Amino acid sequence: MKWVMIATWRMAIEGITEAAEDLKNDGYSGEAVEKAIKIVEDFPYYKSVGYGGLPNENCQVELDAAYMDGDTLSIGAIGGITDFKNPISIAKKLSKERFNCFLVGAGADEYAKKEGFHRINMLTDRAKRYYEKRKRKTVDKGLSPYDGHDTVGIISVDKAGKMVVGTSTSGLFMKKKGRVGDSPISGSGFYVDSEVGGATATGLGEDLMKGCISYEIVRLMKDGLQPQEAADKAVSELNEKLIKRRGKSGDISIVALNNKGEWGVSTNIEGFSFSVVSEDEKPMVYVCNKIKHGKTTYDVASEQWLEAYLNRIKSPITFD
Amino acid sequence: MKWVMIATWRMAIEGITEAAEDLKNDGYSGEAVEKAIKIVEDFPYYKSVGYGGLPNENCQVELDAAYMDGDTLSIGAIGGITDFKNPISIAKKLSKERFNCFLVGAGADEYAKKEGFHRINMLTDRAKRYYEKRKRKTVDKGLSPYDGHDTVGIISVDKAGKMVVGTSTSGLFMKKKGRVGDSPISGSGFYVDSEVGGATATGLGEDLMKGCISYEIVRLMKDGLQPQEAADKAVSELNEKLIKRRGKSGDISIVALNNKGEWGVSTNIEGFSFSVVSEDEKPMVYVCNKIKHGKTTYDVASEQWLEAYLNRIKSPITFD
Repeated sequence: MKWVMIATWRMAIEGITEAAEDLKNDGYSGEAVEKAIKIVEDFPYYKSVGYGGLPNENCQVELDAAYMDGDTLSIGAIGGITDFKNPISIAKKLSKERFNCFLVGAGADEYAKKEGFHRINMLTDRAKRYYEKRKRKTVDKGLSPYDGHDTVGIISVDKAGKMVVGTSTSGLFMKKKGRVGDSPISGSGFYVDSEVGGATATGLGEDLMKGCISYEIVRLMKDGLQPQEAADKAVSELNEKLIKRRGKSGDISIVALNNKGEWGVSTNIEGFSFSVVSEDEKPMVYVCNKIKHGKTTYDVASEQWLEAYLNRIKSPITFD
Repeated sequence: MKWVMIATWRMAIEGITEAAEDLKNDGYSGEAVEKAIKIVEDFPYYKSVGYGGLPNENCQVELDAAYMDGDTLSIGAIGGITDFKNPISIAKKLSKERFNCFLVGAGADEYAKKEGFHRINMLTDRAKRYYEKRKRKTVDKGLSPYDGHDTVGIISVDKAGKMVVGTSTSGLFMKKKGRVGDSPISGSGFYVDSEVGGATATGLGEDLMKGCISYEIVRLMKDGLQPQEAADKAVSELNEKLIKRRGKSGDISIVALNNKGEWGVSTNIEGFSFSVVSEDEKPMVYVCNKIKHGKTTYDVASEQWLEAYLNRIKSPITFD
């Protein structure tokens, strides 16, 4: 069977490039997803996932993650965990449990400590500077500090046809303590069934939950839609519904993959990027245009785009 | 339009009976659901919801709740909150927020304190005795302490056609600190859309999440199925899938209501009870038979059943 990994955002490219080596050598989706996400979590310049992730309103980094096995439907998830190096590994470990597989707050911390996961202070100086800058520009002036944020979500199908999805995020920047988004929520931030396919979302978690977007896409694929059709249908329907019922829709971006290795993406924002690697495609970053007339289009990221990205994520944080 | 309230379990009957008076007098679903659930939360003998709810493995009561508005799709939810009298009211208040509408652990406690919600010790002497008894019988002997548990979930449609769903639970008895079940999870524990209908679940949260059961039922109703058909189809499919993929399925029980006031129920356990009241039905408790050949059947609860229930919930807790 054809192996494929697809991930939200440019930030996943190093991770899936490395994990692809395992899939090539008959590796299994579960380990590939964990490995790829750990690489994203460990890189300090990705400011919305793991180490270096942006903190909550109290300047504390709180992390959400989830792992789902498409064969057994086992789920492991954590919400609002602090100061552990690799949330995805904790979620993966929890997915082995029949009970207590979604842990939050101090309980999640306690579990991770008991299980011997690596504890470190996840707040970097750089993230702290971002926090201070944002605070001055918004909260200190009586403005709302909230904005979109980027979750890494990765779906994999391996040579044996096994599918796994994982997510990891530091959540909404400046969020309230204890806020949980869609990333650890089954059906919203992720869903996978090896007999059909998987999907994973990024954007405004509070709005993604209103449509159980990942489950909806998998269900559409089960009904026979191609991943691209399923993704565009679900995203345009939820986007329109939110506008109709609430006057506006938050950011919604998703990637989807079926068990034949076919994939699709959809987004209601400009510039959503995603990363793909497969048996017959080199690791590649794409950049999307916002969905229009129910269709999302995308192009391979240009050299210029990729360079600007690297400059941006490492540029100094100045206070003006 | 015909108003209806349907709820999981016998324990909801006093609550929906009182809230029905409001719906009769042009009251609105949101207030009716909150009022009904508060009554369940406040009654100390209901040992799986609110005051008197059974504690976690550390003998601490941790509560989950959610509220969803079927017009705006707004959701408010809390997970693992401790020592607040009415979790449903906190969830309802959070549903007014655009950001940070799902709070867990210490962050949920902090929010509720700041917003002035009533704080009390939710652990009763009776719940503590249950805990001690259970601990001696299971954990102290090296056995697993986990068992099913009962979440109250209530769906309402009012005269204006507005639909709301709410859930409240103390979660799995003897759960690990920070464990969150399906009750505050959109699509799993609850889902409602006033243009279609709503559903709410009770049983093993870890398994309910694997099928996004409440969202699935609403989606089936949207496709034209009657609530009873939708409920039976979703429950039998999830039950079979879990058995096929995992060898076993946890408890799954659900109630569903569409926006015409038609309802349905389904369960994979014997003796699931539910409560209904409507414009043309007096408050009534029903008891289900386990789903068979894809159909769930139920009868009005007998006087004998109702009496045995009351005796059971108030019977002394003896250590043998």
